[in-house]
Amino acid sequence: MSEVPIANWQALAASKREAVFSQIPENWRLPESLTSNFHEKATISVLDVPSTCGLLTSRELELTSAYDATELVELMSKGQVKSQEVVTAFCKRAAIAQQCVNCLTEIFFEEAIARARECDDYFEKHGKTMGALHGLPISLKDSFNVKGTQATIGYISFLSRPPAATNSNLVNLLYSHGAVFYCKTNLPQTMMTADSHNNLFGRTLNPHNLSMTAGGSTGGEGALLAMRGSVIGIATDIAGSCRIPALCCGLTSFKPSAGRVPFGGGVPPGRLGSPGSILPVIGPIGHSIRDAELIMRTICNSDAWTYDENVSGVSWRTAPGVSRPLRFGLIRGIPKRPLHPPIARSLHACATKLKSLGNEIVLLDDKIPDLWESNILAWKFFLLDPKKTPMGHLTDAGEPLVPSLKATMEEELLSFEPSLDGLWDMNLQKMKTVHAYHKLVVENELDAILMPGNSATAVPHDTYGITPFTVLQNLVNYPSAILPYGNADEKLDESFLKADVSYVPPYEPKDLEGLPAHVQIMGKPMKDEELMEISRYVEKALST
Amino acid sequence: MSEVPIANWQALAASKREAVFSQIPENWRLPESLTSNFHEKATISVLDVPSTCGLLTSRELELTSAYDATELVELMSKGQVKSQEVVTAFCKRAAIAQQCVNCLTEIFFEEAIARARECDDYFEKHGKTMGALHGLPISLKDSFNVKGTQATIGYISFLSRPPAATNSNLVNLLYSHGAVFYCKTNLPQTMMTADSHNNLFGRTLNPHNLSMTAGGSTGGEGALLAMRGSVIGIATDIAGSCRIPALCCGLTSFKPSAGRVPFGGGVPPGRLGSPGSILPVIGPIGHSIRDAELIMRTICNSDAWTYDENVSGVSWRTAPGVSRPLRFGLIRGIPKRPLHPPIARSLHACATKLKSLGNEIVLLDDKIPDLWESNILAWKFFLLDPKKTPMGHLTDAGEPLVPSLKATMEEELLSFEPSLDGLWDMNLQKMKTVHAYHKLVVENELDAILMPGNSATAVPHDTYGITPFTVLQNLVNYPSAILPYGNADEKLDESFLKADVSYVPPYEPKDLEGLPAHVQIMGKPMKDEELMEISRYVEKALST
Repeated sequence: MSEVPIANWQALAASKREAVFSQIPENWRLPESLTSNFHEKATISVLDVPSTCGLLTSRELELTSAYDATELVELMSKGQVKSQEVVTAFCKRAAIAQQCVNCLTEIFFEEAIARARECDDYFEKHGKTMGALHGLPISLKDSFNVKGTQATIGYISFLSRPPAATNSNLVNLLYSHGAVFYCKTNLPQTMMTADSHNNLFGRTLNPHNLSMTAGGSTGGEGALLAMRGSVIGIATDIAGSCRIPALCCGLTSFKPSAGRVPFGGGVPPGRLGSPGSILPVIGPIGHSIRDAELIMRTICNSDAWTYDENVSGVSWRTAPGVSRPLRFGLIRGIPKRPLHPPIARSLHACATKLKSLGNEIVLLDDKIPDLWESNILAWKFFLLDPKKTPMGHLTDAGEPLVPSLKATMEEELLSFEPSLDGLWDMNLQKMKTVHAYHKLVVENELDAILMPGNSATAVPHDTYGITPFTVLQNLVNYPSAILPYGNADEKLDESFLKADVSYVPPYEPKDLEGLPAHVQIMGKPMKDEELMEISRYVEKALST
Repeated sequence: MSEVPIANWQALAASKREAVFSQIPENWRLPESLTSNFHEKATISVLDVPSTCGLLTSRELELTSAYDATELVELMSKGQVKSQEVVTAFCKRAAIAQQCVNCLTEIFFEEAIARARECDDYFEKHGKTMGALHGLPISLKDSFNVKGTQATIGYISFLSRPPAATNSNLVNLLYSHGAVFYCKTNLPQTMMTADSHNNLFGRTLNPHNLSMTAGGSTGGEGALLAMRGSVIGIATDIAGSCRIPALCCGLTSFKPSAGRVPFGGGVPPGRLGSPGSILPVIGPIGHSIRDAELIMRTICNSDAWTYDENVSGVSWRTAPGVSRPLRFGLIRGIPKRPLHPPIARSLHACATKLKSLGNEIVLLDDKIPDLWESNILAWKFFLLDPKKTPMGHLTDAGEPLVPSLKATMEEELLSFEPSLDGLWDMNLQKMKTVHAYHKLVVENELDAILMPGNSATAVPHDTYGITPFTVLQNLVNYPSAILPYGNADEKLDESFLKADVSYVPPYEPKDLEGLPAHVQIMGKPMKDEELMEISRYVEKALST
């Protein structure tokens, strides 16, 4: 409660949003006749707006949609494309995305284009790139500090903080490899729910269907990337925040093992010094596994420890490509969260496809510790602060809770009173869970575990709720990837409909039609490299 | 408090000690006329007893004293020496050590010799070794579980526990490489003090001077190794337990970064599930850096994660040997614990030697966070259990505290009341400390930090006290090595005597004469391989 209560938080928020909007050049703005259709109740897709609105040239459309990050860097490193051209195109498309889905929190296009020119000049002068990310535009979740910009992370009370005087550690690292930063993206109030909605920046919408959540907590990235207003984004993840937006928006994401990517130097939504043993991690979210690897390899091969005291500094190994049949565990859900038919179908099709390619599938449903209990345990670790610091940040400004946050609080969590003695017992319970997965993986000689990242596709705003399928990998600290696979299709999904279960949220096939489905692949701790290769293999298998 | 109070703990303890002693074959026993001289008040060295008592053949003396572990494995892997011969010699010498310094808790010589024969048979049959530790006798701290033996860790109340049904994870791993286990070694009551003294097994004495501590908590190893009743031992370390016995007994030890060596499956002295973020580690203690590397390399290259869910499984890298001038930080102590002259001289001589070889020395005394505060903070992390479980283990049997334990409890710790809210603040303080060392190391481009492992050599029983110089590396999780260097020498040390300081414990040069001195080298987190190479370089520099 360090800040003085703020009289009129609504006015302050409006003024901040206006300041952000003013960073969009006038000739990049969409007509109000168009934007008035874009709101959280509209059941429309806005994915085609960038190509139909007429603001982007065909070259800009090509640069922003025909390549992944790996290809763009390759083109720039061969001198075939200039960074300035790429960055300008993405700034422009991000501006359009912002006007469709409200995904940005900070815009610094001018600085980005200047930086892109710096990259181009360097290339011209030295005949070589600045590094593995030469000239590449990268979007960042708002919680990263970028010198000279604010990082309010959606708290009204943080508006009084000055712009960042230093970069997050990872920002420094990526910058040293030639990255270009141009915007930051929206996230949920407190960062602890799956709807990227707060009172400062408002709500980010899902480009596939504006009435659906874009996921969270890195939902601004999810929406921006789906609009191809970014080619690769940087997310954080302590309960699924890197993976949930990916599965809501039809993207690929990779949550590494803890301690591989520098996390420090950003803005925490709560109190620093948590004794909870679940560590937040940073991971890439984008359009391909090879882009995820580009980011992970670049970070891990940068002597990351010199940037951040809390990483292990373990280099990226080149894991061998998949050349033998793999053994996949398969987790298909839990009674409390039966899989919506599109997800059940996607998972089934993926397992079937992998089996048909000679891989083995080991069903784990009855062998794993109760997934709901693991989920509740994990969330208790997030509620260990007796001072309830995030709530203090809200009351400092007199702003209310967003609805989504309430939806995350299960009965078992509302009654939870953290205590030191209880924390010992929680740790013991966690150790047993970690031990159980270890035993399963070792005894069954599993290479990876196939499972959903959520029981549903993107769902209506404020109904995503708690995250049993993604928080597990944070609890046990296993790396994990989300791959988009298939789309909700009422007809095809019908055979996966179960009459005797209670879907949460309710399954309304007509509302969800066409939304991206997904699979999640969980690797082994610190075997991020192996998981990357397995994900690449599955990505390829699913594309044929 | 799970056990029923035990009526007569003294009788139970005596009976256990008798059972252990009965495992020593009659013809390996020393005459009482000799052993009656060996007690905690005797100011004598017993280092020469093995070679003068007449029980060991000259071949046995050679095998136990002329080689390090690396050489012994090499000899066995060439078929030049049989494991049975080596193991028998060490069993015999360990039996003699036990009768001099009371270092053992469990003796299983027969099983060891049978296992050695198994190794020899394997070698004969297959023409190759079982692994990197083929036939090598390895001694273990009592806290390791070895199937079929007890692991009371000095608690009377644990006597009622059955022999271990499973091995510690590391025991399994080492076994798979051909290791031979033959005894376990003594430790302090609760394992949280530096005198290896408990009511069950009594006190371990320092072979260099029986009236001095052998250190702890792995003091049984220290004494056994100094007697060359072992060639390599396995220690644990959360505040210096692997390094303190080394510096007290003139040995080499290596405390790795946390998460590299499987820790699970042993017997904890307290409650499981600590929310304290200082992790216990396991490290080797022995006679040379290359032996430490043999152990570390073997462990890390064994896919250690399959043995233990709590290791990172990061392989051992081959770090390049030192081929350029290094930059060493230098920490020379703190006002509360001024260095005894032998340690000041040893550290000074080491720094001077390294400088003369072209290396740079950066004085850090005034730049580091207050070492005493770091020390108190670390110890608070060890006192987080509101249930005070270790005390419960004592009261279960009605046994009293050993004196040494009281000496460890500084005023600031006695008044400490752990709380969940306070733990957040402790973590924040820890983060600041970690950050400060990181900044120092990165900004000064340090390769390692040279410092004492203690302000003194071995000291009289029950006066070692708290451990500011060794707990630091656990607090910040930096790897660290102890190298023996020099010996207390009243004349030579005189010039390092300061008149205006208060030595703790008091500096009594005549009592300490001849005791081993040491240096400590602190590396960078997860750069265990680089620290190993630097330690090898320093070891060599100090030997010339």
